[in-house]
Amino acid sequence: MYSEKVMDHFQNPRNVGEIEGASGVGTVGNAKCGDIMRMYLDIDENGIIHDCKFKTFGCGAAVATSSMATELVKGKTIQEALQVTNKAVMEALDGLPPVKVHCSLLAEEAIHAALWDYAEKH
Amino acid sequence: MYSEKVMDHFQNPRNVGEIEGASGVGTVGNAKCGDIMRMYLDIDENGIIHDCKFKTFGCGAAVATSSMATELVKGKTIQEALQVTNKAVMEALDGLPPVKVHCSLLAEEAIHAALWDYAEKH
Ligand code: FES
Repeated sequence: MYSEKVMDHFQNPRNVGEIEGASGVGTVGNAKCGDIMRMYLDIDENGIIHDCKFKTFGCGAAVATSSMATELVKGKTIQEALQVTNKAVMEALDGLPPVKVHCSLLAEEAIHAALWDYAEKH
Repeated sequence: MYSEKVMDHFQNPRNVGEIEGASGVGTVGNAKCGDIMRMYLDIDENGIIHDCKFKTFGCGAAVATSSMATELVKGKTIQEALQVTNKAVMEALDGLPPVKVHCSLLAEEAIHAALWDYAEKH
């Protein structure tokens, strides 16, 4: 049912946690399942995301997509990070079952919310 | 949104894992969110559940309810374990938001499936 990459990122999630004094923080909820996620970004003076962490109450698919999403946005500019869509994350994970696609939206929306939070502060 | 007990069992889940050569194993899926759970029971010759472990791909609410459910069935007879309903588990956790009640069904159903598996083998 789940690809090897999904199981790997579910069982060994990367970048779980919080960033104190993060440049941007985004909290989003998933209307479909009631799960929540918070994403923390650390953005340097050149607009490069040099750290990214997340916490979630969501399911294994939410954990795996967020883990992969944090890996994908690290080292990127804000413009590049905006192109890390849930589709790109799912492709990097070799797919998700259709019933779990809504879970992958949490990561994309949380990154956007955190970038928006950063933009508002600057 | 979540009680202290829910957060405790989510962040420090009890009895996660597998039991090799378990007396009963139950695997169930949640139609609403597509999540899966497997429950392992070890039942001695007197019909007492002396060990119980679980694995799930489910969300924080599924993890917390399963963790509490395994604590509640340990040391119980099969008859007593059948009374560990999702309602009893939610009460022991000081409640769950309505949108997450379906997640608590996974634990109840997985315990029932594992007891059924045990009954079929004996
Ligand atoms: S079911 Fe809620 S995030 Fe996957």
